[in-house]
Amino acid sequence: MIIVIKDQKNEKQIESLKNWIKGLGLDVHMSRGENSLIMGLIGDTSKVDIDLIRSLDIVESVQRIQEPYKNANRKFHPEDSIIDVGGHKFGGGHFQIIAGPCSVESREQVIEVAKAVKAAGATILRGGAFKPRTSPYSFQGLGLEGLEYLKEARKETGMPICTEIMSERHIDAFLDIDIIQVGARNMQNFELLKRLGKVDKPILLKRGLANTIEEWLMSAEYIMSEGNMNVILCERGIRTFEPYTRNTLDLSAIPILKEKTHLPVIVDPSHASGLSRLVRPMSLAAVGAGADGLIIEVHNDPSKALCDGAQSLKPEQFKEVVDNIDVMLPIVGKKRDKQERV
Amino acid sequence: MIIVIKDQKNEKQIESLKNWIKGLGLDVHMSRGENSLIMGLIGDTSKVDIDLIRSLDIVESVQRIQEPYKNANRKFHPEDSIIDVGGHKFGGGHFQIIAGPCSVESREQVIEVAKAVKAAGATILRGGAFKPRTSPYSFQGLGLEGLEYLKEARKETGMPICTEIMSERHIDAFLDIDIIQVGARNMQNFELLKRLGKVDKPILLKRGLANTIEEWLMSAEYIMSEGNMNVILCERGIRTFEPYTRNTLDLSAIPILKEKTHLPVIVDPSHASGLSRLVRPMSLAAVGAGADGLIIEVHNDPSKALCDGAQSLKPEQFKEVVDNIDVMLPIVGKKRDKQERV
Amino acid sequence: MIIVIKDQKNEKQIESLKNWIKGLGLDVHMSRGENSLIMGLIGDTSKVDIDLIRSLDIVESVQRIQEPYKNANRKFHPEDSIIDVGGHKFGGGHFQIIAGPCSVESREQVIEVAKAVKAAGATILRGGAFKPRTSPYSFQGLGLEGLEYLKEARKETGMPICTEIMSERHIDAFLDIDIIQVGARNMQNFELLKRLGKVDKPILLKRGLANTIEEWLMSAEYIMSEGNMNVILCERGIRTFEPYTRNTLDLSAIPILKEKTHLPVIVDPSHASGLSRLVRPMSLAAVGAGADGLIIEVHNDPSKALCDGAQSLKPEQFKEVVDNIDVMLPIVGKKRDKQERV
Amino acid sequence: MIIVIKDQKNEKQIESLKNWIKGLGLDVHMSRGENSLIMGLIGDTSKVDIDLIRSLDIVESVQRIQEPYKNANRKFHPEDSIIDVGGHKFGGGHFQIIAGPCSVESREQVIEVAKAVKAAGATILRGGAFKPRTSPYSFQGLGLEGLEYLKEARKETGMPICTEIMSERHIDAFLDIDIIQVGARNMQNFELLKRLGKVDKPILLKRGLANTIEEWLMSAEYIMSEGNMNVILCERGIRTFEPYTRNTLDLSAIPILKEKTHLPVIVDPSHASGLSRLVRPMSLAAVGAGADGLIIEVHNDPSKALCDGAQSLKPEQFKEVVDNIDVMLPIVGKKRDKQERV
Repeated sequence: MIIVIKDQKNEKQIESLKNWIKGLGLDVHMSRGENSLIMGLIGDTSKVDIDLIRSLDIVESVQRIQEPYKNANRKFHPEDSIIDVGGHKFGGGHFQIIAGPCSVESREQVIEVAKAVKAAGATILRGGAFKPRTSPYSFQGLGLEGLEYLKEARKETGMPICTEIMSERHIDAFLDIDIIQVGARNMQNFELLKRLGKVDKPILLKRGLANTIEEWLMSAEYIMSEGNMNVILCERGIRTFEPYTRNTLDLSAIPILKEKTHLPVIVDPSHASGLSRLVRPMSLAAVGAGADGLIIEVHNDPSKALCDGAQSLKPEQFKEVVDNIDVMLPIVGKKRDKQERV
Repeated sequence: MIIVIKDQKNEKQIESLKNWIKGLGLDVHMSRGENSLIMGLIGDTSKVDIDLIRSLDIVESVQRIQEPYKNANRKFHPEDSIIDVGGHKFGGGHFQIIAGPCSVESREQVIEVAKAVKAAGATILRGGAFKPRTSPYSFQGLGLEGLEYLKEARKETGMPICTEIMSERHIDAFLDIDIIQVGARNMQNFELLKRLGKVDKPILLKRGLANTIEEWLMSAEYIMSEGNMNVILCERGIRTFEPYTRNTLDLSAIPILKEKTHLPVIVDPSHASGLSRLVRPMSLAAVGAGADGLIIEVHNDPSKALCDGAQSLKPEQFKEVVDNIDVMLPIVGKKRDKQERV
Repeated sequence: MIIVIKDQKNEKQIESLKNWIKGLGLDVHMSRGENSLIMGLIGDTSKVDIDLIRSLDIVESVQRIQEPYKNANRKFHPEDSIIDVGGHKFGGGHFQIIAGPCSVESREQVIEVAKAVKAAGATILRGGAFKPRTSPYSFQGLGLEGLEYLKEARKETGMPICTEIMSERHIDAFLDIDIIQVGARNMQNFELLKRLGKVDKPILLKRGLANTIEEWLMSAEYIMSEGNMNVILCERGIRTFEPYTRNTLDLSAIPILKEKTHLPVIVDPSHASGLSRLVRPMSLAAVGAGADGLIIEVHNDPSKALCDGAQSLKPEQFKEVVDNIDVMLPIVGKKRDKQERV
Repeated sequence: MIIVIKDQKNEKQIESLKNWIKGLGLDVHMSRGENSLIMGLIGDTSKVDIDLIRSLDIVESVQRIQEPYKNANRKFHPEDSIIDVGGHKFGGGHFQIIAGPCSVESREQVIEVAKAVKAAGATILRGGAFKPRTSPYSFQGLGLEGLEYLKEARKETGMPICTEIMSERHIDAFLDIDIIQVGARNMQNFELLKRLGKVDKPILLKRGLANTIEEWLMSAEYIMSEGNMNVILCERGIRTFEPYTRNTLDLSAIPILKEKTHLPVIVDPSHASGLSRLVRPMSLAAVGAGADGLIIEVHNDPSKALCDGAQSLKPEQFKEVVDNIDVMLPIVGKKRDKQERV
């Protein structure tokens, strides 16, 4: 960490800062130029509160040299982490497609969609039982009942299941879920993250709506520092001023993450734009950018004509996307599990 | 709610949408122009999922006419809500200053700061016991022990206390706190909000880092819809691309909120910029914009020279800010409790 | 256009607004519900100042139904525009790669790079002669001299040239340039746009750093409304709070633009991130998202080791990207001019 | 400037970078730690292209220590710049109010408003002759004719005039304008800025919609580096995701600017929100934040009832704002010219 001192003549404050840093167990290297004074902090700076130092009157600016995340850092773990979910691998050249309905609505619906997406090439089933909704008056999901239907669909199809947790309170009911999802709004629900760090299941950690890549990796670190190393990152769009799309999918985050961390990274093209007709182009774009997988909403209710055109694809549209992806994967050096395809 | 139809010739889809809306208990009014078809939804649209409709292929755009929040809406509650905290009132022309240390560090520290801020004019004591930190390696606060020290300071000074809750799990320990704070990162922790809706204590709801005013009011609605009407809103800065300040204080949110809601609105000038030297100008700016109060960090540890210049003011600097505010309040038609001033 | 009236009882103001709208040559259709009053404006609303209406005290909100752009609107021009640049076509399934050095530095440099990128598959040469720089102390480009070198490279290689204009004052010198580029910072330099609307050359219009898609299309409209229909749009990244990349490439803008407009859309993967190692993944992502072309920085100065790793690729790295793109293009139904490949 | 090297073993690249830096006339100080290598650049780094260095593969990050602006920098000019406009001073404790109509519509209108705002306390008249409009189909202003009407109003009232320039082409017509305004969309129209640097008139430089404070000061530097030191900065709102207000007024920019630069800073509360009812609270907030003046839209056309409630105030509302400001100014240690008040 480098601290640039603004007020070089304030010897008392500089000395005080230096002593405080030494008190944290770090060495300080002073470098005095003609018009500048720089303090270099040597040692493990991951516990140093950068915001506190930045706010000091004598400080011009502070810069971390070492990233503040350790377990998630590729520097200390150069090989890709490969996360196995019921035999389906994420990372290290393996590519997975998670698919399923937005919300779990009934036993029949989730089993039907599960069979359809499996036939089209998905290896893992998704479906929302607890739904984070902006309005308290919107449907909040089937809750525990929804989890049961997902488990029945797993039994029926053999597909592992992935669904979102919204509260520490529900943790016991999730211990049997194959991938526990943390939604964008809970990315910095630190108490939930710490609790999930003690669980022996892969965690799908979505990026917060306005969080930086570093903050996202620090949230992964919360989980990992408690012992659970199985974190899959999921880019799902950030908030910008552009109103035509609900959020702006940040695909350059993918190659950046591939440099910074060894964790697998997948993309959710359904939620980012909120428009089903964007799922195909943005899925291909995500593959091009280097994603290790996709999580796609698929519905299967021909009677509910309303849903046509919503953010969910119909199974036949989904199959087309999977076919396109299969052509692209060799270009980016990835391969998808094929045994599941019917 | 108004739905503009893009594809007017798709009679089947339009009919299907119309029937779906009627199934929600709403009336539909169709208005067909030369090049456009508009559906007006009549009735209580607060349960309608606007995102779902927006994502339909036949839909060009959707616009709410009624705000989706009810309990928080000034239309249905034209008078200012006045929230009483131990005799100190927020809203309706009353102005309060909440002050105290960033983190609770020890019994002595919090009592000393409490006395100092009370002497300078603060009416309510703040202090962090559970600290939301980006890094798992940073100090996470004294937790339950910190709550005890705050309660002792309350006993010693008679000041009500305000502190942040981070998990539903801790709710029992907070039932005796005078104002329970929900931090920016938990603004959309919906399970926590619902739980706080059942508590009989005022809730200080901070705005999320990248949340709109409408989403913020919807989070207030989560609390209010469960029965707790005592919500105080707190603007604390939004994330922008400007690096000189940690966040950008959105003061135009104050007069907008004053139109939209009857709830009191206060401002946190300490956290927004992260720079103590901005506390004074931004406090005066907040008063000018129409805030009903301020929450300010004050420290009181002369031995810890490091803290000088951090985001916390020293008591004497804080007193100066209070003195300036007192001159300004009559201009904006507000008054501050004076009996507490020593 | 739909105007939602807030204050329905203010008959005088409503009547006044109605008359003002009629004075603009539009019809007004009033729709009065139980709690709402809606005015529907019928006719050509493209001249109506939506901001003015939005700012009226009696108005709750305003929504355009018709897009404010006409010439650029796909509704009135359903077929893709195909823009021909010296035999190389943009749009309608044609895919072009523009490549060349960031700045024109010398006659030799630009000719050498031109030959190298032509050999690798580029069909059009780019190079900056006038450079928009944040600092007045940075190198501002060779100016008119740079234009001459570009023309010599064109003569030598037969490649059309593309370069940026920064002032109306230089227009005469640009009349012989094959594609005149308008940079992000000048996207709303309306006087320059109007002037370019009278020129008989294709205009490459880059998106402003914080502009919406609609504003971008309105800038295209400025050029088109003066008669020049040959506008190529170029996404180059928008400003967000993410510091790891210089800007955030907004690839979902591509499929959205393909719906809204008939104009070709290309992507600049070099400037968005500012990192050459992101050019390959983001180029593939852009192709997946449906772009009609790419504009890529390539340098060719083995003696200047400094440049290794900058935002420019070396010719051999560029060739690899082109090879990858060639494999991908059939998936997205596009084809690239091949005759040029050496 | 400090460069943190990522790849410490790449001696060849490091040597090459070192030599390149020395070639720019700078000294390099190498500081090698256990896990890090830092290069300190000593000398005038204002010409160094930070983006180029940042993009190198061996570079982890770069940090400027010295601000890249010189003429605008308070470090080299500790006293407030005081800019005199016809006897009315900006900066150094002087506070001015610029007021007038949004657009110049006729001779009578501008003279009438001028008299009204002068009577209410404004010292300088504003009015738009050239209007930057998002749509080419919107009214573009009276142009040169509008400038004439402003000059007549100046003659009639003795008030200096302030109006916006949109093109270098119009420069001759602006040489007689007392304050030449550069709008937000032209903040990085570098050719225009350079031209204005050679003019002997104060320049009112508005902040771009998505520009950082540093970029804004660099645009001031463009003007100042050509010799014109009379730059007044004007905060007018930045673009965020909040839809209730057109833009978000960034008032914390005011105290930051007061630290970084000696130039006067004023605020435009009318354009930021686009809502006239926010002008009063945001004007008071701006004064509280430390602004040196305000620029406010006032209209005066009782027959045009439409305008009531638009972003312009009526003269009597404007007078009220001025009265409030006068009570506040002593708190922030500023004074306003009073001799003009009728």
